Amino acid sequence: MNISKRSVALQASPIRKLFPYANEAKKRGVHVYHLNIGQPDVETPQVFIEAVKKSDFSVLAYADSHGWEPLRESIAAYYHRIGLTYETEDIIITNGGSEALQWAFMICCDPGEEILVPEPFYTNYRGFALPYTVELKPIPTRLENAFALPDDATLEAQITDKTRGIALSNPGNPAGVVYSKDEVCRIAYIAMRHNLFIIADEVYREFCYDGQEATSFGSMTDALDRIILCDSVSKRFSACGARIGSIASHNRDVINAALKLGQARVCCPTLEMIGAKALYDLEPDYFIPIRERYERRRNIMIDALQKMQGVLCEKPGGAFYAIAKLPVDNAEKFALWLLNDFREDGKTVMLAPAEHFYQTPNQGVDEVRLAYVLNTDDLSDAMRVLDSALKQYPGRFLR
Amino acid sequence: MNISKRSVALQASPIRKLFPYANEAKKRGVHVYHLNIGQPDVETPQVFIEAVKKSDFSVLAYADSHGWEPLRESIAAYYHRIGLTYETEDIIITNGGSEALQWAFMICCDPGEEILVPEPFYTNYRGFALPYTVELKPIPTRLENAFALPDDATLEAQITDKTRGIALSNPGNPAGVVYSKDEVCRIAYIAMRHNLFIIADEVYREFCYDGQEATSFGSMTDALDRIILCDSVSKRFSACGARIGSIASHNRDVINAALKLGQARVCCPTLEMIGAKALYDLEPDYFIPIRERYERRRNIMIDALQKMQGVLCEKPGGAFYAIAKLPVDNAEKFALWLLNDFREDGKTVMLAPAEHFYQTPNQGVDEVRLAYVLNTDDLSDAMRVLDSALKQYPGRFLR
Repeated sequence: MNISKRSVALQASPIRKLFPYANEAKKRGVHVYHLNIGQPDVETPQVFIEAVKKSDFSVLAYADSHGWEPLRESIAAYYHRIGLTYETEDIIITNGGSEALQWAFMICCDPGEEILVPEPFYTNYRGFALPYTVELKPIPTRLENAFALPDDATLEAQITDKTRGIALSNPGNPAGVVYSKDEVCRIAYIAMRHNLFIIADEVYREFCYDGQEATSFGSMTDALDRIILCDSVSKRFSACGARIGSIASHNRDVINAALKLGQARVCCPTLEMIGAKALYDLEPDYFIPIRERYERRRNIMIDALQKMQGVLCEKPGGAFYAIAKLPVDNAEKFALWLLNDFREDGKTVMLAPAEHFYQTPNQGVDEVRLAYVLNTDDLSDAMRVLDSALKQYPGRFLR
Repeated sequence: MNISKRSVALQASPIRKLFPYANEAKKRGVHVYHLNIGQPDVETPQVFIEAVKKSDFSVLAYADSHGWEPLRESIAAYYHRIGLTYETEDIIITNGGSEALQWAFMICCDPGEEILVPEPFYTNYRGFALPYTVELKPIPTRLENAFALPDDATLEAQITDKTRGIALSNPGNPAGVVYSKDEVCRIAYIAMRHNLFIIADEVYREFCYDGQEATSFGSMTDALDRIILCDSVSKRFSACGARIGSIASHNRDVINAALKLGQARVCCPTLEMIGAKALYDLEPDYFIPIRERYERRRNIMIDALQKMQGVLCEKPGGAFYAIAKLPVDNAEKFALWLLNDFREDGKTVMLAPAEHFYQTPNQGVDEVRLAYVLNTDDLSDAMRVLDSALKQYPGRFLR
């Protein structure tokens, strides 16, 4: 019994594939600092579970395929507070930001059509596109150039008659890049010139540091019919396990297609939508201490990385990730060695090899993605352990 | 901005498309008996919400992409109780039975490949297949023949070199058909002869009447490598809003592909998995009074339908649906007329036109699907109202 070729082609999560080795290390009594996964340690606001516990029902019935209306209203109110003009009817609730992105790819593309994506990109984009036989076409950005987007000519050279859209995460996973307002405008105008959709993955919108703010593609008023805005409560409110996301658009065809996709799988989970509404109803100052906390962590991690001999790492402006180039032969080998063969005072660190965030072969081979989702003491100690590991790793070499 | 052709081709839910008219009727003060949707009125067992309320966490974190292990263990134990041999590692949790079926189609088929489905079928199958450009090929079954499957020769004549599997719901939605053990065996052997997967949608497994039991495809020991068993808590435990389903298979390639699809969208909602485990831990005798309740309703509804002049309806053996042929020009027109123009003592009924459950054009034009998910008093009254409506409908005609 052969399964489909596209099922075979699906990749196992590169972020998760080293887990068995981490578990083995833990069984040997090694403490593993997890820098590999974007699972925030920030407490989920209590209002979430309080709202769930207050819910009263005798039959846990199907919800509306649009999503629970009070949640959609609260998301619209949240958008209004940040200056965006999405109304309740422009918003469909999805099973996490993941489903929103899957749908966006499918709504833009027929089989074989293409979406441009600045590379490195969130590796799950591949798992969203491949089942729908949508092709991702990388726009190369590189660590040495602070992951800046190429100029118009280089970018437009990637556009073919099969290109239907461009997908960007901003602030970005995995490199923590925040595009300036000028860059967001530039992308919007390129999309307008070439009649492309923009799939705007803005799930890290509030995690922007150094006093900067992220510019939402939803504020590009000339391009609103081509913007598909994907959001999620996962990172925003530290509620990854809720699996509540949303898709918003001023384009009625997009929203109608999303609704039909929603009707096919009927609805999102009721209790989690009730909890998610309470999250979106939080006062905007909820984000202030969270942002400060992440900014402190970023500073500690990046300062430490920049002091390590042979490590290259720019300070990222947002999200809670950074990509670092390490003085090693191969970052995946190094990550495995950390779990299998290394310990410092009984501790080691788990890293995500960055190669898998690139689509272009042989890119990022000596790079890792680090998520700063540990408290500052643990993060400092993890950096100490990493520094020591880099000095001892047999595959070390300095350029 | 044109969206993809396949997005345009998606159909709005035929079960839900008449809702706006029902809402208008309600605004005019008309009481609408909903026979159109399989939303059980049976109470969700209290253990669900109790388990959720007892859950204790400070961070609502991502769950395992396999699904929460205690839930997978409880589903394996449930399968063992009913004589099936699926173990924890053979089971992946999905966002409802919907995601399980979507994945099953994708895992079996590359674009343009085909799945056979006895028609009429659950209309959402189309919404599961189309985004993946999987073709559904109907195996005609007809009301006049109690929706029996055709003989081997007729059935095998539908198989081409593009056919990768056969999908069946058993007990069935929308016709309530329960396949005999012989029929299940026959299908398994056809699948073995032609190297097809069997996508077994058994979400109504416990709703089987007249002392009969449904035979699970999971009991076809010679064919286990080709069986993809899709399940859900929605109907089984009256927990449609939980959106917890599962896919089970003894085929490692299938489970590995499902896991990779799971990793792409990370995980299912945590709280709902906690609640779902409590449901699967219920004693098997939980189903006895529920089954009796549905059986009483079925008898009331079918007895009433069979007494109506010009109505054809066989007594279905399972699930909680029936298809009836009505003495009307067009069942969708009649359903609309019921909502827009008719009332009896201030009441009307909402029906699902059955045409949309057929893929073959012009089939089921004068048929409706009725779900018996109302209490017996309401159901009897709904039948009285329907009988009266049929007598008054301007498009009535008797064959």
